[in-house]
Amino acid sequence: MSKPITLYSHATGPNPWKVAIILEELKVPYTTKFMDMADLKKPPFEALCPNGRVPVIEDPNTGITLWESGAIIEYLVQTYDTKAAFTYTSSPERFYVSQWLHFQMSGQGPYFGQGAWFSRFHEESLPSAKKRYFDQIKRVFYVLNKALEGKQWLVGEKCTVADLSFVTWDMMVPFIFGDDAGSLELEKNYPNYFAWNKRLLERPAVKKIAKDKTEASASH
Amino acid sequence: MSKPITLYSHATGPNPWKVAIILEELKVPYTTKFMDMADLKKPPFEALCPNGRVPVIEDPNTGITLWESGAIIEYLVQTYDTKAAFTYTSSPERFYVSQWLHFQMSGQGPYFGQGAWFSRFHEESLPSAKKRYFDQIKRVFYVLNKALEGKQWLVGEKCTVADLSFVTWDMMVPFIFGDDAGSLELEKNYPNYFAWNKRLLERPAVKKIAKDKTEASASH
Repeated sequence: MSKPITLYSHATGPNPWKVAIILEELKVPYTTKFMDMADLKKPPFEALCPNGRVPVIEDPNTGITLWESGAIIEYLVQTYDTKAAFTYTSSPERFYVSQWLHFQMSGQGPYFGQGAWFSRFHEESLPSAKKRYFDQIKRVFYVLNKALEGKQWLVGEKCTVADLSFVTWDMMVPFIFGDDAGSLELEKNYPNYFAWNKRLLERPAVKKIAKDKTEASASH
Repeated sequence: MSKPITLYSHATGPNPWKVAIILEELKVPYTTKFMDMADLKKPPFEALCPNGRVPVIEDPNTGITLWESGAIIEYLVQTYDTKAAFTYTSSPERFYVSQWLHFQMSGQGPYFGQGAWFSRFHEESLPSAKKRYFDQIKRVFYVLNKALEGKQWLVGEKCTVADLSFVTWDMMVPFIFGDDAGSLELEKNYPNYFAWNKRLLERPAVKKIAKDKTEASASH
């Protein structure tokens, strides 16, 4: 039995919860330290992660401290998914998993994040900036919907970390779009995407994290 | 001798050139197909990449078609860098390479790209949006400068694909900041970053690609 990994997290930010889902799926023991945003961009946290963001993990079993959720996921599967239950060791499949993981990191997370910024946090209302990111988010739905045509999962015949990496940002859609969320008509406009996201949401590990996140949001 | 890889590229976009630098460093033969932006988000290109973006590679030696520059870089080093000249096979070093590559993909590229968008392409002038991204770009300089304190390269004692992945977006700083570029005072404010970027720019492979890009920009 391995010693628990420490996961530095935040009550509402989607990226640490993405890592928590992978830890749950892999049944790797972990403890969560919830950080306040105000403490991230200064010492001592900056010594763990010069980027001043969560997630960060510390793994006492290997001694590693690592940040960037995509890199943490690669570390976790290479270290703990020894039977490749959530990835592939064969080529080209393992590179397709990497491709979708990088698309999540560079194409989904940043655009969803900027959409949230301009709809919820920016100092002034900028309708054309908000529209830009809402349109980009719809493009992400379009790309995933197209890639999932006739398929249950992004790579091969099983759920991999590539699929799982998208779900915590997808959970943010109602927050990002607010009153505009209904007009997305996800089930009608992006049926493959919608069914895939529903499959992900029904997984016990994803359900547990959704519940943990709701509880953490209420108490932090 | 391996058959040349086809690199789908664009004359000015930094991400395909990032891959070209890795191909040059690894001395992997390749041919470049320059695409017009207008042809990316429709068939037949969408059949290669549902995301409708470059880079995409086709490797006749393995039969793979792959997109997302970060995933392409991982594929290239795992397939062609058999002596790990530009990466590590040891732990934790190989995970640190992954960490910085993911930071480039999720933390540098997207913010630099949005900075370019609001300074150069957006339909209206939005000073507070532009300022947001200029501030985020300065944070990226700050993070890299801090991480490079007392070091020549991001991971260990050699130049890896993690270092190389940043340089084509860094080349865009004058374009992004325009008249504001001088006020960045990169050498004074971020000396470790500045020296590291200079080391990268002096590499023959990077010099060649900078020249190729200038020529492609002039003729496409």
